[in-house]
Amino acid sequence: MAAIDLNADMGEGYGAYDWGADDILLKYVSSANIACGFHAGDPHTMRKAVAGCLKYGVAIGAHPGLPDRLGFGRREMSITPEEAGDFVLYQTGALQAYVKAMGSRLQHVKLHGALYHMAAKDTQLAEAIVNAIHRLDPELLLYGLSGSEAQAAADKFGIRFIAEGFADRAYLPDGSLVPRHARGAVLESSADIVRQAYTLAVSGQFRTLCLHGDTLKASEHAREIVDYFQKNGITVQKTN
Amino acid sequence: MAAIDLNADMGEGYGAYDWGADDILLKYVSSANIACGFHAGDPHTMRKAVAGCLKYGVAIGAHPGLPDRLGFGRREMSITPEEAGDFVLYQTGALQAYVKAMGSRLQHVKLHGALYHMAAKDTQLAEAIVNAIHRLDPELLLYGLSGSEAQAAADKFGIRFIAEGFADRAYLPDGSLVPRHARGAVLESSADIVRQAYTLAVSGQFRTLCLHGDTLKASEHAREIVDYFQKNGITVQKTN
Amino acid sequence: MAAIDLNADMGEGYGAYDWGADDILLKYVSSANIACGFHAGDPHTMRKAVAGCLKYGVAIGAHPGLPDRLGFGRREMSITPEEAGDFVLYQTGALQAYVKAMGSRLQHVKLHGALYHMAAKDTQLAEAIVNAIHRLDPELLLYGLSGSEAQAAADKFGIRFIAEGFADRAYLPDGSLVPRHARGAVLESSADIVRQAYTLAVSGQFRTLCLHGDTLKASEHAREIVDYFQKNGITVQKTN
Amino acid sequence: MAAIDLNADMGEGYGAYDWGADDILLKYVSSANIACGFHAGDPHTMRKAVAGCLKYGVAIGAHPGLPDRLGFGRREMSITPEEAGDFVLYQTGALQAYVKAMGSRLQHVKLHGALYHMAAKDTQLAEAIVNAIHRLDPELLLYGLSGSEAQAAADKFGIRFIAEGFADRAYLPDGSLVPRHARGAVLESSADIVRQAYTLAVSGQFRTLCLHGDTLKASEHAREIVDYFQKNGITVQKTN
Repeated sequence: MAAIDLNADMGEGYGAYDWGADDILLKYVSSANIACGFHAGDPHTMRKAVAGCLKYGVAIGAHPGLPDRLGFGRREMSITPEEAGDFVLYQTGALQAYVKAMGSRLQHVKLHGALYHMAAKDTQLAEAIVNAIHRLDPELLLYGLSGSEAQAAADKFGIRFIAEGFADRAYLPDGSLVPRHARGAVLESSADIVRQAYTLAVSGQFRTLCLHGDTLKASEHAREIVDYFQKNGITVQKTN
Repeated sequence: MAAIDLNADMGEGYGAYDWGADDILLKYVSSANIACGFHAGDPHTMRKAVAGCLKYGVAIGAHPGLPDRLGFGRREMSITPEEAGDFVLYQTGALQAYVKAMGSRLQHVKLHGALYHMAAKDTQLAEAIVNAIHRLDPELLLYGLSGSEAQAAADKFGIRFIAEGFADRAYLPDGSLVPRHARGAVLESSADIVRQAYTLAVSGQFRTLCLHGDTLKASEHAREIVDYFQKNGITVQKTN
Repeated sequence: MAAIDLNADMGEGYGAYDWGADDILLKYVSSANIACGFHAGDPHTMRKAVAGCLKYGVAIGAHPGLPDRLGFGRREMSITPEEAGDFVLYQTGALQAYVKAMGSRLQHVKLHGALYHMAAKDTQLAEAIVNAIHRLDPELLLYGLSGSEAQAAADKFGIRFIAEGFADRAYLPDGSLVPRHARGAVLESSADIVRQAYTLAVSGQFRTLCLHGDTLKASEHAREIVDYFQKNGITVQKTN
Repeated sequence: MAAIDLNADMGEGYGAYDWGADDILLKYVSSANIACGFHAGDPHTMRKAVAGCLKYGVAIGAHPGLPDRLGFGRREMSITPEEAGDFVLYQTGALQAYVKAMGSRLQHVKLHGALYHMAAKDTQLAEAIVNAIHRLDPELLLYGLSGSEAQAAADKFGIRFIAEGFADRAYLPDGSLVPRHARGAVLESSADIVRQAYTLAVSGQFRTLCLHGDTLKASEHAREIVDYFQKNGITVQKTN
């Protein structure tokens, strides 16, 4: 029987602003990537998100992003590798404090948005980030794109890398993603997304699947995927 | 022979902006309070400040402030005790990550500016902050104002409290500070400041003295105090 | 036949974060108070809000707040009168640029949240703010609390003051608001709110009523108030 | 007798942080580019900078930058043309409010840092920015790089363009700048900078020269250039 981790971004509100459907997602995922205050999240939101994970037994990861709250961390910025490492160290440390103060342990780091994509392509950036993670805690896992520079850097520094698949993105035969702006790149129907999730889960190529929860419909997909997995012998379980 | 800790705020620049004279102060103090990115400081400045402390053997503390960079954390804000605890936990965790990644250990927390003063007067705020510190790491010390609510909270939660004196502030006979806006509240001549530092150091009432380093003149005072201490049998040494 | 202005806050999203139900409110109100980027709002949101007002013929006001996005401008901060004037001038100027670039004219200023309440109580703060508004454009109106220091300052500087009533707040016989935390201070049922709005509108004491739109239910109340006004001979019309 | 405008960036402090030597520069330049709160500057700093310009009879320009205070607006960000236009409109409007409230008139706009360079290369970005400036006030001048996309956009929208030369940068024979990272790209000796300023001033190709004032040495150069100009028959005068 196959087993796979399901991860989703959480704690992406800010102050009075809500975001996503964390309460729903917590019932279905096994890992959460919690925003750390740069692209989204704030001290109160982070505490609430960590508490939610602990309540539902969901593994906790830091989800550091670029210092661009206005752009939700989705715009690339010309930062140096040193800056990238510092941004990740700062944010991961801040979240780690919450996890530690609440009696648990940080499991992983997953980069957010533009930083995720920059670290997938840029060797030096990826190595500076992974080096920072490694110096903070060599037991931390790194979630990321299979075959990326982030994976290469994790291998180099001895950080365990968890390759993730995307339930709502179409793949090319070579395993790479169909570029986002191409026709059919983003799956929209529930049936397509559930089928894709299943295909990825049984492929053996991914240790975790990324689910989106920023809309109500996206949270619905999470529920449907988990239902389908349960009926088809796939166990959702944490990476560790 | 008496011994006393000397502490100073450091790492209070931001991005392209410099602040203070950290390089000079590092030669004289035994403890540094490093800004954590809310009122001042940023990921790069923090790393540089931690590296400076490690180079000079200066004990490292977190110096969390209010989320008010424009006001340098000097303006009081109506925050709840819960928010205060969260702000301190976030910032202390972020700095702790740097210290840990560079192979050392965070020694203490000292609140900054308005937050320092608010926690000296407000029981609930002080307790929420000390509770957060205690949950993060019960070995952390809290530097603060003697007789303050922060001290009472530290006693209550079992956090070791380090009472600090101010070399450049006049004291009333009962040991409290002359209010800042009263005539003569702030000492300005080197001779007065050095004499005051000596009086406080030998009084036995303080475990640490706070030196200011935000101007070149202030860094000069640090040098003169340390010179005078050396000639008069007072050893500058870390709290621990 | 009575006539009254209805105003509501708008453009209070930020980046990827939505807020309120501007599209619904625009159908019912005659004036909008648009956030200017300190407590909420950003360059894109402001442009969208101004465009919405122009489409529906709604008069446009600036809604400046404290520089505290995390607290949505709801927390009091210890700022000087000079800072208060500068904050209002900056934000009002930024919004005015949008209004001007889109071929229209800024009608009024209404302070937001904690700044609104601070300027209602503090003479010096109120005068610094009104002075800044007057120097920018003496034709601007100031919306605010009847009998407040803001009103007194407007009278002193020759700025036209528009006293506003709150449809969802209970009033004491002397015309002051029941303190927010007292029982019954905030009206919750539609029937109560509509009745209160009508009473205020026909009282002749207010030139504008403030409607809330931050929840779907609040937007519903706006619709019900306007329906009731139409059936009972009260015309909703702009201040000018 | 030749005449040329000299411009310099000003008001680039933030809160407690000082920057540059505005007080010295004001004596030598005829135009100032004042930071507007995104990459640097804040409501108080802006007012002080505008007041300084009025005192010395220096023409006032807005100096809008990217929303990246941590990076001082020097890092490129992937923004859309629409965002670029909105950022410029917001900041220019905010500064215009100060100028208007103090009884004067905004003369020009000069983009800052990465935004300056992005608008020199990217047609769509440049056009969106110039369109925003034009809609705000078609009388505003645009200072920028000769032959840039910004100049082309200004020509297209009917905004008067003021080509600027750089006293401390080496030029290639075709009039373009030696790339910054090439050997000899940045002139360092006073003699070289003064000679270069003179050459540019008499070349007839530039209406304004940009002086730097972010270091004490840079302000010294400003003084030396103006001295040399006075002795050699070049008048420093505003663009208008």
